[in-house]
Amino acid sequence: MIYLDNAATTKPDINAINYAKGFLLEKYYNPSALYRNGIEVANSIKETKQNVLKFLGGVNFDVVFTSCGTESDNQAIFCAVKRGVFVTDKGEHSAVYKSFLELKNRGNTVLFADLNKDGSVNIDSLIDIIRNNKVDFVSIMHVNNETGAINDINAIARAIKSINKNIVFHSDGVQAYGKLSYKLSNDIDLYSISGHKINALKGTGALLINKRIKIAPFLIGGGQENGLRSGTENVFGIKVFDFASKNHYNNITENFNYVKKLKEKLISKLDKDLFYIISSKDSSPYILSVSAIGLKGEIVMHLLEEKGIIVGNGSACSSKSPFSRVIESCGLGKDILSGVIRISFSIDIKEEDIDLVADELNSTVKDLKRIIK
Amino acid sequence: MIYLDNAATTKPDINAINYAKGFLLEKYYNPSALYRNGIEVANSIKETKQNVLKFLGGVNFDVVFTSCGTESDNQAIFCAVKRGVFVTDKGEHSAVYKSFLELKNRGNTVLFADLNKDGSVNIDSLIDIIRNNKVDFVSIMHVNNETGAINDINAIARAIKSINKNIVFHSDGVQAYGKLSYKLSNDIDLYSISGHKINALKGTGALLINKRIKIAPFLIGGGQENGLRSGTENVFGIKVFDFASKNHYNNITENFNYVKKLKEKLISKLDKDLFYIISSKDSSPYILSVSAIGLKGEIVMHLLEEKGIIVGNGSACSSKSPFSRVIESCGLGKDILSGVIRISFSIDIKEEDIDLVADELNSTVKDLKRIIK
Repeated sequence: MIYLDNAATTKPDINAINYAKGFLLEKYYNPSALYRNGIEVANSIKETKQNVLKFLGGVNFDVVFTSCGTESDNQAIFCAVKRGVFVTDKGEHSAVYKSFLELKNRGNTVLFADLNKDGSVNIDSLIDIIRNNKVDFVSIMHVNNETGAINDINAIARAIKSINKNIVFHSDGVQAYGKLSYKLSNDIDLYSISGHKINALKGTGALLINKRIKIAPFLIGGGQENGLRSGTENVFGIKVFDFASKNHYNNITENFNYVKKLKEKLISKLDKDLFYIISSKDSSPYILSVSAIGLKGEIVMHLLEEKGIIVGNGSACSSKSPFSRVIESCGLGKDILSGVIRISFSIDIKEEDIDLVADELNSTVKDLKRIIK
Repeated sequence: MIYLDNAATTKPDINAINYAKGFLLEKYYNPSALYRNGIEVANSIKETKQNVLKFLGGVNFDVVFTSCGTESDNQAIFCAVKRGVFVTDKGEHSAVYKSFLELKNRGNTVLFADLNKDGSVNIDSLIDIIRNNKVDFVSIMHVNNETGAINDINAIARAIKSINKNIVFHSDGVQAYGKLSYKLSNDIDLYSISGHKINALKGTGALLINKRIKIAPFLIGGGQENGLRSGTENVFGIKVFDFASKNHYNNITENFNYVKKLKEKLISKLDKDLFYIISSKDSSPYILSVSAIGLKGEIVMHLLEEKGIIVGNGSACSSKSPFSRVIESCGLGKDILSGVIRISFSIDIKEEDIDLVADELNSTVKDLKRIIK
């Protein structure tokens, strides 16, 4: 089997699990406990936070561990600004997008910037909104989870703050963390990351909070995480995340270049009469969005599955539209919208696998077209 | 080392970890994925839910997996009733108690029923509140985490609903699940449980929701858990929880009786001139709250730690009062309040350990009194 749905979730790193397993059966103590064993666990969590800050150059930030990227996004969106004008874009993950719909339900003003064809935020549209409204909060994702489009969040935050320095700026960095090489500028106020996209475990996320920002707790209770996120910490998950993060950052450029080669190779081998390439050249190498023009992406996905190739499909099956809300917002035609599949890479994929995947993609789509006609 | 702080957290069950480990490196797929491997993981989560419902007799309930008991409590308290009159008691865990303070901050009316001397809810006080107010929501914990006092939540829910059938009734069952033998009556609307108190992992909790109840999501995003809790599911944690739950429920009566014997033995061996027993005879056998009269519980805790015995201490170090809010609400004198320690059991503790623990408790407190005088 060739697994190419790494933007959905990744296979946990056995070395990360082995590194952390002492926290399962030995250092299982509650980090809130006042005896030495508990304090040691608490200190170990603090170490992981320091590591995360080091990777992201985030000397101005604190880290709060959460249960997932969605929780990080929810805390950023609901707990930093109480009421006001909230701005995001049409390409956001549901954790942000649907939270904005909830903000609207609660009587706030919410505004959505347009997308470019590759899923990146249209800067003119965004700046226009910022100039023409008294905006309180902006959330712009770092890497689009469907197309891989990279938004230059440091530049965007700078531009926004030069118009209105009081805006709180959040970015969902779930698809960027551990994959791209960057540092967070001090213009960023809040930044969400997640473990299971980088070979750590489902159930671990974090929110980076600029020290100048006051944010309310999202989970209320025993006062863990400096009162910002109550609930006993998922220590094992946090320590797996620690190792997986280190492992990604220690090799971030090599990994990036390797995965880039995989993606470029696949693009070059795809039959351009059959496939439209949605992802732009400067998108994250970890995500490739293509469309089997005129076909249904879900059918292509299932046919590939039969051949042992796992890819994601771009359409949101539960929404009213049969198409992906995000890809639809890129302004592409219906023939392209219906056929979207997402191929997302990891360094575990071998180069020769890409030949096989390209062949199977081409032949599957060719055969399907023949059957349908 | 003898670990007697099992109400804070438990040592994970190696068999549960082994049972679930296939979900780390093999079945690591995203349960929201539409291909077979993803659907299998989703089905496996559904199985765990069915098991939880079986253990609690909860045919009328749905299960939502959360990241901890605190999240379950927060969702119950903030997402079932939008505004109104909220009632709880003075013995609740901070996850409930502090959430009620937040409800008050938000302009709701919150009322707190008194406690009996053992930490159980004073029923007269509670019923009085229900009769004299137009109450919307009631939260009464099942087993008090500091004293082990058991509240008969089925009877309480019945009594409350016979006065006002529209009240939504929630109970924090974190210290009851897997430890006491009971079934949830249909008068219960919401019930919180947690994994790491029963030898599963930190980072896994659940909220049982009566099917007649409409509740808003707490985490908003991709629509996981029937839209009630977005965020990629902590699959490994859920499957460890599955096994740990089964293991506890398969032996629930034997475990109960064994732990009861440990607790009774310890009580019988404690020097009653030195210790006041806070927990009542009919409290949960898993928790014993005692006070080293006139001493500081934290000092006793640290002295025991030096001797390899880990117990909890009852005082909330971060609060304004030096005493536990809960034990203070039991109406005990200052001499007792200061000396509280919590001894919480598991079936891993050997009977002969109890002899040692009793001796060390008695001698430590006796020596400390001698030094201080």
